[in-house]
Amino acid sequence: MSFEKFFCPNSVVIIGAAREEGKVGHTILDNVIESGYKGKLFLVNPKADKIHGIKCYSSVLDIQEDIDLAIIAIPGKAVSKSLDECAQRNVRWVIIISAGFKEAGIKGAKMEKRLVEKSKLYGMRILGPNCLGMINANCPINASFSPNMPRKGNISFVSQSGALGTSVLDWAKSNRIGLSKFVSLGNKADISENDLFEAWLEDEDTKVITAYLEGVKDGKEFMRISSKVSRVKPIIVVKAGNTDAGARAVSSHTGTLAGSTRAYDAAFKQSGVIRARTVKDLFNYGLAFSYQPLPQGKRTVIVTNAGGPGIMATDACEENNIPLATLEKVTIDKLKEFLPEASNFYNPVDVLGDALADRYRKTLEVIFQDKNVDAIVVLLTPQAMTQPYETAKAIVEVVRTTARKIPVLTCFMGGFEVKKGVDYLIRNEIPNFEIPEDAISALKVMIDYSDWVNKKTFPIEEFEVDESVVKELLDRCKSEGRLELGEMESRRILEAYNIKVPQAELARDVKEAKEIARRIGYPVVLKIVSPNILHKTDVGGVRIGIESENELEESFDQILWNVKKYMPEANIKGILVQEMIKSKKETIIGVSSDPQFGPMIMFGLGGIYVETLKDVSFRIAPISVGDAKEMVEEIKTFNLLKGVRGEKPSDIKSIIETILKVSQLVTDFPEIIEMDINPLFVKEEGQGCVAGDARIRIGG
Amino acid sequence: MSFEKFFCPNSVVIIGAAREEGKVGHTILDNVIESGYKGKLFLVNPKADKIHGIKCYSSVLDIQEDIDLAIIAIPGKAVSKSLDECAQRNVRWVIIISAGFKEAGIKGAKMEKRLVEKSKLYGMRILGPNCLGMINANCPINASFSPNMPRKGNISFVSQSGALGTSVLDWAKSNRIGLSKFVSLGNKADISENDLFEAWLEDEDTKVITAYLEGVKDGKEFMRISSKVSRVKPIIVVKAGNTDAGARAVSSHTGTLAGSTRAYDAAFKQSGVIRARTVKDLFNYGLAFSYQPLPQGKRTVIVTNAGGPGIMATDACEENNIPLATLEKVTIDKLKEFLPEASNFYNPVDVLGDALADRYRKTLEVIFQDKNVDAIVVLLTPQAMTQPYETAKAIVEVVRTTARKIPVLTCFMGGFEVKKGVDYLIRNEIPNFEIPEDAISALKVMIDYSDWVNKKTFPIEEFEVDESVVKELLDRCKSEGRLELGEMESRRILEAYNIKVPQAELARDVKEAKEIARRIGYPVVLKIVSPNILHKTDVGGVRIGIESENELEESFDQILWNVKKYMPEANIKGILVQEMIKSKKETIIGVSSDPQFGPMIMFGLGGIYVETLKDVSFRIAPISVGDAKEMVEEIKTFNLLKGVRGEKPSDIKSIIETILKVSQLVTDFPEIIEMDINPLFVKEEGQGCVAGDARIRIGG
Repeated sequence: MSFEKFFCPNSVVIIGAAREEGKVGHTILDNVIESGYKGKLFLVNPKADKIHGIKCYSSVLDIQEDIDLAIIAIPGKAVSKSLDECAQRNVRWVIIISAGFKEAGIKGAKMEKRLVEKSKLYGMRILGPNCLGMINANCPINASFSPNMPRKGNISFVSQSGALGTSVLDWAKSNRIGLSKFVSLGNKADISENDLFEAWLEDEDTKVITAYLEGVKDGKEFMRISSKVSRVKPIIVVKAGNTDAGARAVSSHTGTLAGSTRAYDAAFKQSGVIRARTVKDLFNYGLAFSYQPLPQGKRTVIVTNAGGPGIMATDACEENNIPLATLEKVTIDKLKEFLPEASNFYNPVDVLGDALADRYRKTLEVIFQDKNVDAIVVLLTPQAMTQPYETAKAIVEVVRTTARKIPVLTCFMGGFEVKKGVDYLIRNEIPNFEIPEDAISALKVMIDYSDWVNKKTFPIEEFEVDESVVKELLDRCKSEGRLELGEMESRRILEAYNIKVPQAELARDVKEAKEIARRIGYPVVLKIVSPNILHKTDVGGVRIGIESENELEESFDQILWNVKKYMPEANIKGILVQEMIKSKKETIIGVSSDPQFGPMIMFGLGGIYVETLKDVSFRIAPISVGDAKEMVEEIKTFNLLKGVRGEKPSDIKSIIETILKVSQLVTDFPEIIEMDINPLFVKEEGQGCVAGDARIRIGG
Repeated sequence: MSFEKFFCPNSVVIIGAAREEGKVGHTILDNVIESGYKGKLFLVNPKADKIHGIKCYSSVLDIQEDIDLAIIAIPGKAVSKSLDECAQRNVRWVIIISAGFKEAGIKGAKMEKRLVEKSKLYGMRILGPNCLGMINANCPINASFSPNMPRKGNISFVSQSGALGTSVLDWAKSNRIGLSKFVSLGNKADISENDLFEAWLEDEDTKVITAYLEGVKDGKEFMRISSKVSRVKPIIVVKAGNTDAGARAVSSHTGTLAGSTRAYDAAFKQSGVIRARTVKDLFNYGLAFSYQPLPQGKRTVIVTNAGGPGIMATDACEENNIPLATLEKVTIDKLKEFLPEASNFYNPVDVLGDALADRYRKTLEVIFQDKNVDAIVVLLTPQAMTQPYETAKAIVEVVRTTARKIPVLTCFMGGFEVKKGVDYLIRNEIPNFEIPEDAISALKVMIDYSDWVNKKTFPIEEFEVDESVVKELLDRCKSEGRLELGEMESRRILEAYNIKVPQAELARDVKEAKEIARRIGYPVVLKIVSPNILHKTDVGGVRIGIESENELEESFDQILWNVKKYMPEANIKGILVQEMIKSKKETIIGVSSDPQFGPMIMFGLGGIYVETLKDVSFRIAPISVGDAKEMVEEIKTFNLLKGVRGEKPSDIKSIIETILKVSQLVTDFPEIIEMDINPLFVKEEGQGCVAGDARIRIGG
């Protein structure tokens, strides 16, 4: 669906245009007029004849011309009727500024729900309610009640917090930062970040997408759209409400059910969404993408007129795994031709404190020709002879006249003395940062995004599996009103998805147990089987490492004795005789269900690594082989799987395959809301892995 | 030594005062005059009669009056003679602006060394050379060549980079940040950060000490002074050159030998020095300390007129372990009296988007009386009706009129619209931050510093030890030209310091071995003993877990056979029969030697925890029991020592004691530059620990 008429309508009506200054309906009118909007403007206010010399209609119904966009700024209770009238006049786009809906309680939420139902019926799209409105600097139109119309730029910004929007617009204006489109989402009754991301994919005026979100409206849809859009344009998001306390504040604020931080992290990672920690970072990154081309590699050169900031930038590069470029010999030779002897000709290149603009210019010209350089960071401190403004001009000129497109970021550090230079840089699309660390952070994000764009995508693999077995087992479980599957059932589900489980058979007496053990081979494990016993270990129902018939006999009796003692009423089906797996490593694959994103897969090394070190990785299902590989490689203890101290590597390929099968299982059967394969025994490379035990829970 | 006359001299001479504008000697003259300096000013320039109407002497020797401070801005080669003349006139303080010394190469370094020798002889103190100079906003005097005289404040700043100093002065002026004293260290030939920290301890005009350092001049002295000063005034340091690449840049820059990041981290932690990540953080923290009282607890309340920023602040609190205050019932009742119904009366307190200044005022008045609140963070976004300036005034008024002293930090987010309010806040000593996260970071640093100030200090404990044994062993090792001690020697050293080692005796034949094993009790360990064999395992010289006489016999022969095969020339002293320790956990205590700070102690869990997870902690020796305790508790795997899954806890007290003994050993014998106790077997609580193996290296 094209948002063209929404962002640049040929005609607009303000319903609730007010005479009184200070009223929202008046401010919006002023803003539309002052923004230089060139389309037709209609006003609705039954109590006024004219405002600012523009005729007021008493109802939308009285307007005889086509209306593309309606802006509603009347009391919440009157909105519904207004919407009906808009529908009669075929208005397709509506911005509801009015508050008093979901954010105000249950009654408001009901009213909001009805608005949405109506809009669907009418084929109408709604922004808001309870929002600030929309601004398009290119149309131009300011259809919001923020007076801060930004200058034209190519960064579009969507904010779930209107107040934060006002801060950002004010800040952007003060810092001469250009924006393309600004949208305040309000309650997201209809139009959400998903619609806007998709609309901005096609939008020529948008090069960078930025967002402040407290939650996403539809997790799966968010991932689908973001994955597509982020291949073409960077999406940078500040996601607030990261922590438990924060999340509580979210729900009291907009009623959004915040998904867990882990889920958002995983979803963003899988969709190529860049996560900014703060609003400041959001726009630091945004500017870098907006003004500069993507780096085609990581090798960075730092040019500075002072050692200190050079060291800071070098530190920041190291922290961010950005390698300093090794300059070509020809570059160094050329630099030596004109730089003073005391300069540093190697990276970071120190042009010294007395460098005038021309020395910076010549240095950059030479560096631009160096094929070892993928990105340039220029630092300047205002020393006695420094020419911040002229240096800014020189940088812009070199960037403009060089055929080679590599990103240039600057950090002119200081205040009044560098201001003119900084303004010139910003005006000419060189992103300048307050401190070297910020420039390097922005560069890091550009490098990562460049990797993402060039990254191979993997389709979701489909393994051949037996779904019918699982369906039958789950159905039976549901019909019996159970939420937790028994061990035998879980085993069968895994087997149906070709996940290996230890050999095992049920023995009803010790004689059968001996026969089975002989077939399987010692050592074996014995486990009580009873629908009444979920925690087998707690009742003494498990014995491991049984090496001989004698031991088996003794253990069999002991288990029965234990169980009879602790759970005399238990219905005992028998004792499972199970192969004892000799493996190199124990891992865990888990599944939990996130309210926003659905089933989420966890991977980690077993035991203390998960419990004490919390060294685990997450991805949202369904996941691709690329995701699964990253999951395994992401944990800090990955080295232990690769093998340390001369150990042979574990079968990592087989772990990845098991993760994919689990992903397929919980995607096929979303009723599985929790699952643990713990331990998943991993053998040496090439020898596979075996699910030692599994626990599966379904939704109630 | 009092720096009073240095920072506020009664008389100053500028040696090298220049007529020509743009020259350093001219700029300094202008700066001294324009700073409003009220003392006597003399100029030395043999080629001029007068500059700016002030008489020029041809030499310092011609000036008949007392001179407190000389500022030398003449070519480097002429400085030495100038210094002699200053000495004749009894000048005690000299700032050498001139360059061409250590930073320029070996010749310059020699010249600089001679200057230092002379100054010592003359009882003279030198700042620089190769520095920007000094500024004291309170005297006032600008004895630097930066034209940016800051307004008066109570933050003193010392910078090892002159260029960074110019940036900071420019930035401070532009943002109306007051400073007390600014010192550019240059090459630190004489006056260093240590002198200044000590001077500022007594300085009434300095409340907060800030520094940009690339290294410290004398690590031990830095720790001694900082520990003392930081109990009274916060010291905040940006230490650049943190990484390997960064450290290389340091050495090419000022010739400072950068200590490793780990050593600096440890030294700062032990001395109460607050480490800022960036220059921006340095001054964010500085402002908070400068303007506000220390919090007496952590419980923080957030007041906001918008949900979004409230969530961000809440997130930041959670990340920084700052608890949100639970407001008293009486507070909530009072808030309900005047806040609109839709407000959030709980923390974060949302006064809503239409809040005028008065609503903020009343809210703060109520919150100030709440005994559950230790700190207040006020957020404001410029919405339609918001009054940033009036709100700033209201905040300042409440803070001024309330008897209770708790810190108030603000975040007025935006640009032009909040500027007047922000300026008012800064002018009235309320620190304002650009984004909520910065405010919370500053608060976190204040809380940590408050903890430091209130923290109990522990004296360095002295265990009773036998130093003579160690001295004798080390002496013998030195006399034999060896740098590595043998196992038997290391054992004896540990024993001399009452660190338990396994029972062990040397067996010359298998018969002796059997007798020893019988005494010690099985299982035992066998290890080859030969001065030629350092890596015993590599030559098959170790057998563990020997359970019986038969096994012992076989192992004894096997070891001899292995050693003869791999090292036929080795001089074999015998085979050590050692008690096999049954312990719960294996840990490591290590010692390395840092060029700046001397011996540094490491602690971690053994094996993969150190190797793969790099989960270790460091402290500089000598360390106190408090430090040792922190070291053990700091590692991520500390839980494993406390006992997980129902395990009994390990003997943590005994680990701490062993760390302290090692600290004492390497402090008593600084020639020990490397040492590893690996593994240190740790038994159950109350049962102590045993050094399984030790390696000791001495300096060449």
